[in-house]
Amino acid sequence: MTTNFYAPPSAIRQNRVVLPEDEARHVRSVLRGRTGDEITVVDGEGGWYRVRIDHLASEQVVGTIQETRTDVGEPEVHVTVGLGLLTKRSRFETFAEKAVELGVSRIVPLRTRHTEPASLRTERVRNVMIAALKQCRRSCLPELAAPHALAALLEDVSADHRFILHGQGTAAPFGKHLEKLGGGDRALTLVGPEGGFTPDEVEAAVEAGCTPVSVGPRRLRAETAGIVAVHALTAGPTVGGRT
Amino acid sequence: MTTNFYAPPSAIRQNRVVLPEDEARHVRSVLRGRTGDEITVVDGEGGWYRVRIDHLASEQVVGTIQETRTDVGEPEVHVTVGLGLLTKRSRFETFAEKAVELGVSRIVPLRTRHTEPASLRTERVRNVMIAALKQCRRSCLPELAAPHALAALLEDVSADHRFILHGQGTAAPFGKHLEKLGGGDRALTLVGPEGGFTPDEVEAAVEAGCTPVSVGPRRLRAETAGIVAVHALTAGPTVGGRT
Repeated sequence: MTTNFYAPPSAIRQNRVVLPEDEARHVRSVLRGRTGDEITVVDGEGGWYRVRIDHLASEQVVGTIQETRTDVGEPEVHVTVGLGLLTKRSRFETFAEKAVELGVSRIVPLRTRHTEPASLRTERVRNVMIAALKQCRRSCLPELAAPHALAALLEDVSADHRFILHGQGTAAPFGKHLEKLGGGDRALTLVGPEGGFTPDEVEAAVEAGCTPVSVGPRRLRAETAGIVAVHALTAGPTVGGRT
Repeated sequence: MTTNFYAPPSAIRQNRVVLPEDEARHVRSVLRGRTGDEITVVDGEGGWYRVRIDHLASEQVVGTIQETRTDVGEPEVHVTVGLGLLTKRSRFETFAEKAVELGVSRIVPLRTRHTEPASLRTERVRNVMIAALKQCRRSCLPELAAPHALAALLEDVSADHRFILHGQGTAAPFGKHLEKLGGGDRALTLVGPEGGFTPDEVEAAVEAGCTPVSVGPRRLRAETAGIVAVHALTAGPTVGGRT
Protein backbone atom coordinates (compact mmCIF):
# COMPACT_ATOMS: atom_id res chain seq x y z
CA MET A 1 0.00 0.00 0.00
CA THR A 2 1.69 3.14 -1.15
CA THR A 3 -0.50 6.11 -0.25
CA ASN A 4 -0.76 7.47 3.26
CA PHE A 5 -4.11 8.04 4.93
CA TYR A 6 -5.11 11.18 6.76
CA ALA A 7 -6.79 11.31 10.16
CA PRO A 8 -6.91 14.51 12.20
CA PRO A 9 -5.43 14.33 15.73
CA SER A 10 -8.97 14.14 17.17
CA ALA A 11 -9.36 10.75 15.47
CA ILE A 12 -6.32 9.37 17.26
CA ARG A 13 -6.65 8.39 20.94
CA GLN A 14 -3.76 6.65 22.60
CA ASN A 15 -2.99 3.76 20.29
CA ARG A 16 -6.34 3.68 18.52
CA VAL A 17 -7.13 5.32 15.15
CA VAL A 18 -10.62 5.83 13.72
CA LEU A 19 -10.35 6.87 10.07
CA PRO A 20 -12.69 9.59 8.77
CA GLU A 21 -15.49 8.30 6.53
CA ASP A 22 -13.99 9.17 3.16
CA GLU A 23 -10.64 7.66 4.11
CA ALA A 24 -12.39 4.54 5.40
CA ARG A 25 -14.23 4.21 2.08
CA HIS A 26 -10.91 4.48 0.30
CA VAL A 27 -9.41 1.68 2.36
CA ARG A 28 -12.38 -0.55 1.57
CA SER A 29 -13.21 0.20 -2.04
CA VAL A 30 -9.92 1.21 -3.64
CA LEU A 31 -7.38 -0.72 -1.64
CA ARG A 32 -9.74 -3.57 -0.70
CA GLY A 33 -8.13 -3.52 2.73
CA ARG A 34 -8.83 -6.36 5.16
CA THR A 35 -8.53 -6.91 8.88
CA GLY A 36 -4.89 -7.38 9.77
CA ASP A 37 -3.56 -5.23 6.90
CA GLU A 38 -1.22 -2.39 7.75
CA ILE A 39 -1.65 1.16 6.54
CA THR A 40 0.22 4.39 7.17
CA VAL A 41 -1.73 7.25 8.70
CA VAL A 42 -0.58 10.87 9.13
CA ASP A 43 -2.34 13.40 11.34
CA GLY A 44 -1.27 16.56 9.50
CA GLU A 45 0.50 17.85 12.60
CA GLY A 46 3.70 15.84 12.33
CA GLY A 47 2.37 12.50 13.58
CA TRP A 48 3.10 9.46 11.43
CA TYR A 49 1.63 6.07 12.36
CA ARG A 50 1.88 2.53 11.11
CA VAL A 51 -1.55 1.12 11.86
CA ARG A 52 -2.94 -2.40 11.83
CA ILE A 53 -6.58 -2.61 10.77
CA ASP A 54 -8.70 -4.26 13.48
CA HIS A 55 -12.18 -3.59 12.25
CA LEU A 56 -13.82 -2.66 8.94
CA ALA A 57 -17.47 -1.67 8.62
CA SER A 58 -19.30 -0.03 5.75
CA GLU A 59 -17.97 3.46 6.44
CA GLN A 60 -15.65 2.86 9.35
CA VAL A 61 -12.12 1.61 9.70
CA VAL A 62 -10.56 1.27 13.14
CA GLY A 63 -6.97 0.29 13.78
CA THR A 64 -4.20 0.00 16.35
CA ILE A 65 -0.96 1.93 16.17
CA GLN A 66 2.09 -0.33 15.72
CA GLU A 67 4.74 2.33 15.27
CA THR A 68 4.88 6.10 15.80
CA ARG A 69 7.25 8.56 14.17
CA THR A 70 7.29 12.34 13.92
CA ASP A 71 7.93 14.83 11.14
CA VAL A 72 8.49 12.18 8.48
CA GLY A 73 9.08 13.90 5.14
CA GLU A 74 9.17 17.40 6.64
CA PRO A 75 11.82 19.81 5.33
CA GLU A 76 14.29 21.41 7.74
CA VAL A 77 13.38 24.88 6.51
CA HIS A 78 9.98 26.38 7.36
CA VAL A 79 8.74 28.05 4.18
CA THR A 80 5.89 30.55 3.97
CA VAL A 81 4.82 31.62 0.49
CA GLY A 82 2.65 34.68 -0.05
CA LEU A 83 1.15 34.29 -3.53
CA GLY A 84 -1.03 36.92 -5.19
CA LEU A 85 -4.61 35.76 -5.67
CA LEU A 86 -5.02 34.57 -9.24
CA THR A 87 -7.92 35.32 -11.55
CA LYS A 88 -8.06 31.72 -12.69
CA ARG A 89 -8.67 29.92 -9.43
CA SER A 90 -7.49 26.57 -10.73
CA ARG A 91 -4.01 28.08 -11.00
CA PHE A 92 -3.94 28.80 -7.28
CA GLU A 93 -5.00 25.20 -6.68
CA THR A 94 -2.19 23.92 -8.91
CA PHE A 95 0.24 25.97 -6.85
CA ALA A 96 -1.18 24.69 -3.56
CA GLU A 97 -0.91 21.06 -4.67
CA LYS A 98 2.66 21.32 -5.92
CA ALA A 99 3.77 23.48 -2.98
CA VAL A 100 2.56 20.85 -0.51
CA GLU A 101 4.36 18.08 -2.40
CA LEU A 102 7.53 20.15 -2.45
CA GLY A 103 7.42 20.96 1.26
CA VAL A 104 5.83 24.37 1.90
CA SER A 105 4.67 25.01 5.49
CA ARG A 106 2.30 27.95 5.05
CA ILE A 107 0.45 29.44 2.08
CA VAL A 108 -0.85 32.99 2.33
CA PRO A 109 -3.08 34.27 -0.49
CA LEU A 110 -2.08 37.90 -1.09
CA ARG A 111 -4.17 40.86 -2.03
CA THR A 112 -2.06 43.31 -4.03
CA ARG A 113 -2.61 46.23 -6.36
CA HIS A 114 -2.79 43.97 -9.40
CA THR A 115 -4.93 41.19 -7.97
CA GLU A 116 -8.38 41.24 -9.44
CA PRO A 117 -11.15 40.95 -6.86
CA ALA A 118 -10.46 37.23 -7.04
CA SER A 119 -11.80 34.73 -4.60
CA LEU A 120 -10.48 31.46 -3.28
CA ARG A 121 -12.38 28.18 -3.15
CA THR A 122 -10.99 27.57 0.34
CA GLU A 123 -12.55 24.16 0.92
CA ARG A 124 -11.39 22.99 -2.47
CA VAL A 125 -7.84 24.24 -1.97
CA ARG A 126 -7.75 22.50 1.40
CA ASN A 127 -8.89 19.20 -0.12
CA VAL A 128 -6.22 19.48 -2.81
CA MET A 129 -3.67 20.07 -0.05
CA ILE A 130 -4.79 17.03 1.96
CA ALA A 131 -4.61 14.83 -1.14
CA ALA A 132 -1.10 16.10 -1.83
CA LEU A 133 -0.08 15.53 1.80
CA LYS A 134 -1.11 11.90 1.58
CA GLN A 135 0.48 11.38 -1.78
CA CYS A 136 3.89 12.86 -1.05
CA ARG A 137 4.34 11.14 2.31
CA ARG A 138 4.72 14.17 4.49
CA SER A 139 3.28 14.30 7.97
CA CYS A 140 2.40 18.02 8.38
CA LEU A 141 -0.51 19.62 6.56
CA PRO A 142 0.58 23.16 5.65
CA GLU A 143 -1.59 26.03 6.84
CA LEU A 144 -3.75 27.83 4.31
CA ALA A 145 -4.03 31.33 5.78
CA ALA A 146 -6.85 33.78 5.14
CA PRO A 147 -6.07 36.29 2.37
CA HIS A 148 -3.74 39.05 3.58
CA ALA A 149 -2.90 42.47 2.27
CA LEU A 150 0.80 42.65 1.41
CA ALA A 151 1.53 45.13 4.22
CA ALA A 152 -0.22 42.95 6.78
CA LEU A 153 1.81 39.90 5.79
CA LEU A 154 5.07 41.84 5.96
CA GLU A 155 4.16 42.93 9.46
CA ASP A 156 2.83 39.57 10.70
CA VAL A 157 5.44 37.08 9.70
CA SER A 158 8.61 36.48 11.62
CA ALA A 159 11.22 35.04 9.26
CA ASP A 160 14.98 34.65 9.21
CA HIS A 161 15.04 35.19 5.46
CA ARG A 162 12.67 37.22 3.30
CA PHE A 163 12.56 37.15 -0.47
CA ILE A 164 10.45 38.78 -3.15
CA LEU A 165 10.41 37.15 -6.58
CA HIS A 166 10.84 39.89 -9.06
CA GLY A 167 11.63 38.84 -12.58
CA GLN A 168 12.38 42.20 -14.09
CA GLY A 169 15.80 43.77 -14.16
CA THR A 170 18.56 43.12 -11.79
CA ALA A 171 17.32 40.69 -9.15
CA ALA A 172 19.97 38.15 -8.17
CA PRO A 173 19.45 34.44 -8.91
CA PHE A 174 17.61 32.77 -6.03
CA GLY A 175 20.22 30.02 -5.75
CA LYS A 176 22.91 32.43 -4.57
CA HIS A 177 20.93 33.26 -1.45
CA LEU A 178 19.99 29.73 -0.53
CA GLU A 179 23.41 28.79 0.78
CA LYS A 180 22.72 30.95 3.82
CA LEU A 181 19.72 28.88 4.87
CA GLY A 182 20.25 26.54 7.81
CA GLY A 183 18.16 23.83 9.45
CA GLY A 184 15.26 25.28 11.43
CA ASP A 185 15.33 28.60 9.60
CA ARG A 186 12.11 30.29 8.59
CA ALA A 187 11.86 31.77 5.10
CA LEU A 188 9.17 34.01 3.62
CA THR A 189 8.89 34.28 -0.17
CA LEU A 190 6.53 36.68 -1.92
CA VAL A 191 5.23 35.97 -5.42
CA GLY A 192 3.12 38.52 -7.30
CA PRO A 193 -0.18 37.90 -9.10
CA GLU A 194 -0.44 37.76 -12.93
CA GLY A 195 0.28 41.47 -13.28
CA GLY A 196 3.28 41.35 -10.94
CA PHE A 197 4.01 43.62 -8.02
CA THR A 198 3.98 47.39 -8.53
CA PRO A 199 7.27 49.28 -7.96
CA ASP A 200 5.74 50.64 -4.74
CA GLU A 201 5.00 47.14 -3.50
CA VAL A 202 8.51 45.93 -4.29
CA GLU A 203 9.91 48.95 -2.47
CA ALA A 204 7.73 48.30 0.60
CA ALA A 205 8.85 44.67 0.64
CA VAL A 206 12.51 45.64 0.36
CA GLU A 207 12.09 48.12 3.20
CA ALA A 208 10.59 45.29 5.25
CA GLY A 209 13.73 43.24 4.68
CA CYS A 210 12.92 41.28 1.51
CA THR A 211 15.70 40.54 -0.96
CA PRO A 212 14.59 40.70 -4.61
CA VAL A 213 15.44 37.41 -6.31
CA SER A 214 14.88 35.86 -9.72
CA VAL A 215 14.06 32.22 -10.48
CA GLY A 216 15.22 32.30 -14.09
CA PRO A 217 15.48 34.25 -17.30
CA ARG A 218 11.99 33.65 -18.70
CA ARG A 219 8.79 35.29 -17.55
CA LEU A 220 6.98 32.65 -15.51
CA ARG A 221 3.34 32.49 -14.59
CA ALA A 222 2.83 33.35 -10.94
CA GLU A 223 2.08 29.80 -9.84
CA THR A 224 5.05 28.41 -11.78
CA ALA A 225 7.39 30.88 -10.09
CA GLY A 226 5.96 29.91 -6.72
CA ILE A 227 6.41 26.19 -7.42
CA VAL A 228 10.06 26.41 -8.41
CA ALA A 229 10.78 28.77 -5.49
CA VAL A 230 9.40 26.26 -2.98
CA HIS A 231 11.49 23.50 -4.57
CA ALA A 232 14.64 25.62 -4.35
CA LEU A 233 14.02 26.20 -0.62
CA THR A 234 13.05 22.69 0.43
CA ALA A 235 15.01 20.22 -1.70
CA GLY A 236 17.39 19.56 1.21
CA PRO A 237 17.15 16.89 3.92
CA THR A 238 14.06 16.19 6.02
CA VAL A 239 13.66 16.37 9.78
CA GLY A 240 12.07 12.99 10.39
CA GLY A 241 13.53 10.97 7.55
CA ARG A 242 11.46 9.54 4.74
CA THR A 243 9.49 6.41 3.98
CA MET B 1 1.82 45.44 -24.53
CA THR B 2 3.31 42.62 -22.58
CA THR B 3 2.36 39.36 -24.27
CA ASN B 4 4.02 38.13 -27.45
CA PHE B 5 2.01 37.04 -30.46
CA TYR B 6 2.56 33.86 -32.42
CA ALA B 7 2.73 33.59 -36.20
CA PRO B 8 4.17 30.51 -37.91
CA PRO B 9 7.06 31.11 -40.32
CA SER B 10 4.66 30.73 -43.27
CA ALA B 11 2.91 33.92 -42.11
CA ILE B 12 6.13 35.91 -42.34
CA ARG B 13 7.40 36.97 -45.77
CA GLN B 14 10.36 39.28 -45.97
CA ASN B 15 9.44 42.15 -43.67
CA ARG B 16 5.69 41.53 -43.69
CA VAL B 17 3.73 39.64 -41.02
CA VAL B 18 0.12 38.46 -41.37
CA LEU B 19 -1.18 37.32 -38.00
CA PRO B 20 -3.33 34.16 -37.81
CA GLU B 21 -7.03 34.84 -37.24
CA ASP B 22 -7.15 34.10 -33.51
CA GLU B 23 -4.08 36.19 -32.84
CA ALA B 24 -5.55 39.03 -34.92
CA ARG B 25 -8.75 38.87 -32.88
CA HIS B 26 -6.68 39.11 -29.72
CA VAL B 27 -4.91 42.23 -30.97
CA ARG B 28 -8.24 43.87 -31.78
CA SER B 29 -10.52 42.80 -28.94
CA VAL B 30 -8.28 42.32 -25.95
CA LEU B 31 -5.47 44.78 -26.58
CA ARG B 32 -7.56 47.18 -28.65
CA GLY B 33 -4.56 47.60 -30.93
CA ARG B 34 -4.53 50.36 -33.52
CA THR B 35 -2.60 51.12 -36.69
CA GLY B 36 0.88 52.28 -35.77
CA ASP B 37 1.04 50.27 -32.53
CA GLU B 38 3.97 47.95 -32.07
CA ILE B 39 3.65 44.31 -31.04
CA THR B 40 6.14 41.50 -30.57
CA VAL B 41 5.70 38.41 -32.71
CA VAL B 42 7.53 35.09 -32.39
CA ASP B 43 7.50 32.38 -35.04
CA GLY B 44 8.14 29.39 -32.78
CA GLU B 45 11.36 28.58 -34.63
CA GLY B 46 13.63 31.11 -32.98
CA GLY B 47 12.47 34.21 -34.85
CA TRP B 48 11.54 37.24 -32.74
CA TYR B 49 10.11 40.34 -34.42
CA ARG B 50 9.10 43.80 -33.32
CA VAL B 51 6.25 44.60 -35.68
CA ARG B 52 4.39 47.83 -36.46
CA ILE B 53 0.72 47.33 -37.25
CA ASP B 54 -0.13 48.71 -40.71
CA HIS B 55 -3.60 47.37 -41.22
CA LEU B 56 -6.40 46.01 -39.04
CA ALA B 57 -9.54 44.37 -40.44
CA SER B 58 -12.18 42.29 -38.67
CA GLU B 59 -10.07 39.14 -38.53
CA GLN B 60 -6.81 40.27 -40.02
CA VAL B 61 -3.82 42.15 -38.71
CA VAL B 62 -0.91 42.93 -41.02
CA GLY B 63 2.32 44.57 -39.94
CA THR B 64 5.86 45.44 -40.93
CA ILE B 65 8.94 44.12 -39.16
CA GLN B 66 10.94 46.85 -37.44
CA GLU B 67 13.51 44.71 -35.68
CA THR B 68 14.55 41.07 -35.90
CA ARG B 69 16.28 38.99 -33.24
CA THR B 70 16.85 35.28 -32.83
CA ASP B 71 16.57 32.81 -29.97
CA VAL B 72 15.31 35.39 -27.48
CA GLY B 73 14.57 33.66 -24.19
CA GLU B 74 15.98 30.30 -25.30
CA PRO B 75 18.10 28.36 -22.80
CA GLU B 76 21.64 27.35 -23.69
CA VAL B 77 20.90 23.71 -22.87
CA HIS B 78 18.64 21.66 -25.15
CA VAL B 79 16.37 19.65 -22.86
CA THR B 80 14.27 16.67 -23.90
CA VAL B 81 11.91 15.27 -21.30
CA GLY B 82 10.34 11.85 -21.70
CA LEU B 83 7.34 11.79 -19.35
CA GLY B 84 5.16 8.75 -18.79
CA LEU B 85 1.62 9.20 -20.11
CA LEU B 86 -0.62 10.12 -17.20
CA THR B 87 -4.08 8.77 -16.49
CA LYS B 88 -5.40 12.23 -15.73
CA ARG B 89 -4.73 14.02 -18.96
CA SER B 90 -4.91 17.49 -17.42
CA ARG B 91 -1.76 16.61 -15.48
CA PHE B 92 0.18 16.08 -18.70
CA GLU B 93 -1.11 19.47 -19.88
CA THR B 94 0.03 21.13 -16.65
CA PHE B 95 3.47 19.64 -17.24
CA ALA B 96 3.57 20.80 -20.86
CA GLU B 97 2.62 24.37 -19.92
CA LYS B 98 5.16 24.70 -17.13
CA ALA B 99 7.89 22.91 -19.09
CA VAL B 100 7.53 25.39 -21.97
CA GLU B 101 7.69 28.35 -19.57
CA LEU B 102 10.78 26.88 -17.95
CA GLY B 103 12.58 26.24 -21.24
CA VAL B 104 12.12 22.64 -22.38
CA SER B 105 12.90 21.95 -26.06
CA ARG B 106 11.20 18.62 -26.67
CA ILE B 107 8.49 16.70 -24.86
CA VAL B 108 8.13 12.98 -25.51
CA PRO B 109 5.10 11.18 -24.02
CA LEU B 110 6.33 7.79 -22.85
CA ARG B 111 4.62 4.43 -22.86
CA THR B 112 5.96 2.33 -20.01
CA ARG B 113 4.93 -0.73 -18.07
CA HIS B 114 2.93 1.32 -15.58
CA THR B 115 1.25 3.73 -17.98
CA GLU B 116 -2.41 2.96 -18.28
CA PRO B 117 -3.65 2.86 -21.87
CA ALA B 118 -3.80 6.63 -21.57
CA SER B 119 -4.25 8.95 -24.49
CA LEU B 120 -3.09 12.48 -25.16
CA ARG B 121 -5.29 15.35 -26.32
CA THR B 122 -2.56 16.38 -28.77
CA GLU B 123 -4.25 19.48 -30.17
CA ARG B 124 -5.07 20.67 -26.71
CA VAL B 125 -1.52 20.10 -25.41
CA ARG B 126 -0.19 22.00 -28.42
CA ASN B 127 -2.48 24.96 -27.75
CA VAL B 128 -1.38 25.05 -24.12
CA MET B 129 2.22 25.05 -25.33
CA ILE B 130 1.64 27.93 -27.77
CA ALA B 131 -0.06 30.00 -25.05
CA ALA B 132 2.89 29.34 -22.73
CA LEU B 133 5.37 30.24 -25.48
CA LYS B 134 3.72 33.63 -25.93
CA GLN B 135 3.42 34.26 -22.25
CA CYS B 136 6.98 33.46 -21.22
CA ARG B 137 8.64 35.40 -24.06
CA ARG B 138 10.53 32.58 -25.66
CA SER B 139 10.93 32.34 -29.40
CA CYS B 140 11.04 28.56 -30.01
CA LEU B 141 7.98 26.36 -29.70
CA PRO B 142 9.12 23.04 -28.23
CA GLU B 143 8.34 19.89 -30.16
CA LEU B 144 5.61 17.61 -28.87
CA ALA B 145 6.69 14.19 -30.13
CA ALA B 146 4.41 11.24 -30.77
CA PRO B 147 4.24 8.79 -27.86
CA HIS B 148 7.31 6.56 -27.70
CA ALA B 149 8.05 3.30 -25.98
CA LEU B 150 10.87 3.76 -23.48
CA ALA B 151 13.25 1.57 -25.49
CA ALA B 152 12.55 3.51 -28.68
CA LEU B 153 13.30 6.83 -27.00
CA LEU B 154 16.53 5.52 -25.52
CA GLU B 155 17.60 4.43 -29.00
CA ASP B 156 16.43 7.54 -30.85
CA VAL B 157 17.76 10.43 -28.87
CA SER B 158 21.30 11.68 -29.09
CA ALA B 159 22.16 13.45 -25.85
CA ASP B 160 25.33 14.53 -24.06
CA HIS B 161 23.71 13.83 -20.70
CA ARG B 162 21.03 11.30 -19.83
CA PHE B 163 19.14 11.19 -16.56
CA ILE B 164 16.36 9.10 -15.12
CA LEU B 165 14.40 10.52 -12.19
CA HIS B 166 14.12 7.81 -9.67
CA GLY B 167 12.94 8.80 -6.26
CA GLN B 168 13.48 5.57 -4.40
CA GLY B 169 16.67 4.66 -2.67
CA THR B 170 20.05 5.88 -3.50
CA ALA B 171 19.79 8.17 -6.51
CA ALA B 172 22.09 11.20 -6.23
CA PRO B 173 20.63 14.70 -5.99
CA PHE B 174 20.09 16.15 -9.47
CA GLY B 175 21.98 19.34 -8.62
CA LYS B 176 25.30 17.50 -8.27
CA HIS B 177 25.21 16.48 -11.92
CA LEU B 178 24.20 19.81 -13.34
CA GLU B 179 27.60 21.42 -12.92
CA LYS B 180 28.83 19.31 -15.82
CA LEU B 181 26.33 20.86 -18.26
CA GLY B 182 27.75 23.38 -20.71
CA GLY B 183 26.21 25.74 -23.26
CA GLY B 184 24.92 23.89 -26.31
CA ASP B 185 24.71 20.55 -24.50
CA ARG B 186 21.76 18.26 -25.05
CA ALA B 187 20.18 16.60 -22.04
CA LEU B 188 17.57 13.86 -21.89
CA THR B 189 15.59 13.36 -18.69
CA LEU B 190 13.16 10.49 -18.13
CA VAL B 191 10.27 10.80 -15.69
CA GLY B 192 8.03 7.85 -14.91
CA PRO B 193 4.23 7.76 -14.89
CA GLU B 194 2.18 7.67 -11.65
CA GLY B 195 3.31 4.15 -10.83
CA GLY B 196 6.98 4.91 -11.50
CA PHE B 197 9.38 2.94 -13.62
CA THR B 198 9.81 -0.78 -13.01
CA PRO B 199 13.24 -2.01 -11.87
CA ASP B 200 13.70 -3.48 -15.37
CA GLU B 201 13.00 -0.13 -16.97
CA VAL B 202 15.44 1.66 -14.67
CA GLU B 203 18.06 -0.97 -15.49
CA ALA B 204 17.49 -0.60 -19.24
CA ALA B 205 17.82 3.18 -18.92
CA VAL B 206 21.03 2.89 -16.91
CA GLU B 207 22.44 0.49 -19.50
CA ALA B 208 21.60 3.09 -22.15
CA GLY B 209 23.69 5.65 -20.26
CA CYS B 210 21.13 7.29 -17.94
CA THR B 211 22.24 8.41 -14.48
CA PRO B 212 19.58 7.87 -11.77
CA VAL B 213 18.92 11.19 -10.03
CA SER B 214 16.55 12.46 -7.37
CA VAL B 215 14.83 15.84 -7.25
CA GLY B 216 14.16 15.81 -3.52
CA PRO B 217 13.23 13.79 -0.47
CA ARG B 218 9.44 13.69 -0.90
CA ARG B 219 7.50 11.55 -3.35
CA LEU B 220 6.43 13.90 -6.13
CA ARG B 221 3.69 13.45 -8.65
CA ALA B 222 5.12 12.67 -12.08
CA GLU B 223 4.35 16.09 -13.56
CA THR B 224 5.76 17.90 -10.51
CA ALA B 225 9.01 15.97 -10.79
CA GLY B 226 9.19 16.83 -14.48
CA ILE B 227 8.57 20.53 -13.82
CA VAL B 228 11.30 20.93 -11.22
CA ALA B 229 13.72 18.87 -13.35
CA VAL B 230 13.25 21.20 -16.32
CA HIS B 231 13.82 24.20 -14.07
CA ALA B 232 17.02 22.71 -12.69
CA LEU B 233 18.35 22.21 -16.22
CA THR B 234 17.37 25.53 -17.77
CA ALA B 235 17.61 28.20 -15.09
CA GLY B 236 20.91 29.41 -16.56
CA PRO B 237 21.50 32.12 -19.17
CA THR B 238 19.68 32.35 -22.51
CA VAL B 239 21.15 32.28 -26.01
CA GLY B 240 19.44 35.34 -27.44
CA GLY B 241 19.01 37.46 -24.33
CA ARG B 242 15.64 38.35 -22.90
CA THR B 243 13.03 41.06 -23.29
